[in-house]
Amino acid sequence: MNATSPTSAPASEHADPLLTAEAYLLDVDGTLIDSNYLHVIAWQRALRDANTAAPAASIHAAIGLDSAKLLDRIAPEADDEQRDRISSRHSAHYSDLSEELALLPGARELLRLLHERGTRVVLATSAPQEEVDRQLEVLDAEQWIDAITTAEDVETAKPEPDVFAVAIERAGVPAERCVAIGDARWDMIAAAKAGVVAVGVETGGTDGGVLTEAGAVSVHQGVQEIVDLLQRSA
Amino acid sequence: MNATSPTSAPASEHADPLLTAEAYLLDVDGTLIDSNYLHVIAWQRALRDANTAAPAASIHAAIGLDSAKLLDRIAPEADDEQRDRISSRHSAHYSDLSEELALLPGARELLRLLHERGTRVVLATSAPQEEVDRQLEVLDAEQWIDAITTAEDVETAKPEPDVFAVAIERAGVPAERCVAIGDARWDMIAAAKAGVVAVGVETGGTDGGVLTEAGAVSVHQGVQEIVDLLQRSA
Repeated sequence: MNATSPTSAPASEHADPLLTAEAYLLDVDGTLIDSNYLHVIAWQRALRDANTAAPAASIHAAIGLDSAKLLDRIAPEADDEQRDRISSRHSAHYSDLSEELALLPGARELLRLLHERGTRVVLATSAPQEEVDRQLEVLDAEQWIDAITTAEDVETAKPEPDVFAVAIERAGVPAERCVAIGDARWDMIAAAKAGVVAVGVETGGTDGGVLTEAGAVSVHQGVQEIVDLLQRSA
Repeated sequence: MNATSPTSAPASEHADPLLTAEAYLLDVDGTLIDSNYLHVIAWQRALRDANTAAPAASIHAAIGLDSAKLLDRIAPEADDEQRDRISSRHSAHYSDLSEELALLPGARELLRLLHERGTRVVLATSAPQEEVDRQLEVLDAEQWIDAITTAEDVETAKPEPDVFAVAIERAGVPAERCVAIGDARWDMIAAAKAGVVAVGVETGGTDGGVLTEAGAVSVHQGVQEIVDLLQRSA
């Protein structure tokens, strides 16, 4: 899918926020790193360990949510003890699969390019510290990243705006001059609540139509397409 | 998502094909059995074995295609030898994951109910015999199934119409009195080419909007919703 823009106003009035943003707030899972499908398998294995089950597609649709909200959807009948067990089994299964984590095309190039342009780069995730450490290893890009959020920084994850609110503060740039990039409908909703322009990528496996409906001002096949756009505008 | 119907004509003129069909041509992977995400992981591992890679979401979008067409998309630069290696590694990795195959909600109930109503039930798949054998084990429903297609029956898999053409013949019912149920855009396209009404389910992880665009006359969250519809109409 090519970039889509719902506006027909002249470019001078509504310049592409991807080109003018002073800070990029970047989701990681499904946006920079190809992890969503491994998360689905890990949650499915964790449910099985707790003698319950949910279809993979319904787990997929909940990826990126706060884990409490994710469990409300995929294990609605589980009691607190089962929920704790499912969460802890997910972490174990996901850790077993973490050697399969791969960069998405253009991920490192995007971070480097933004850094070179002087755009602030903030990773806006609510993953636990252990997962963030592994993400940083895969990205191998710390020299281009200005700040990171983790589970420890926020009370409530996406679709609540907290992750992006902290990311905006760390970027040191007003919300209206930030752009948030994510792959899940929850990213789009959280960005809107935080007053940030949301841009979607389809590499998490969520269709562009769903991201647009959730508030994306434009949708790209993946961050490689955003790299190409930035390079063409240079 | 609830069932959607693009028609506003009176019910008497356009009765729901799900209720009036004399034969159901059923896709299996992603429709009756929760296998698509395991296929994605198996293909991704197979690509890695051949020193290549593709994002999981782009593999997911190609699941359900003829494997030659799937490889054109996920490994466009592979030569014939590499393509053979990737295919054979996929089979091996998928076989390793096959203990994780699970029924989708309502799958067995649908087969039983259709059989009891006197509707012909044909599994319309182009999976290799070995995978079909494993599917039948998981379904445990042979007493309710009238016919099956496999890779051996067709030259060209979905989105070409061959699978459904053979399924129609085995159903022994004219195409216009058959309904095809599937989860992938390829199922919808193949059904249209075979002259069969296509109905989509979202359990394969493809959004309803995408299925509708590919020709689905209605889309359901999963086959459980079709079971509920049949039961309400009984």
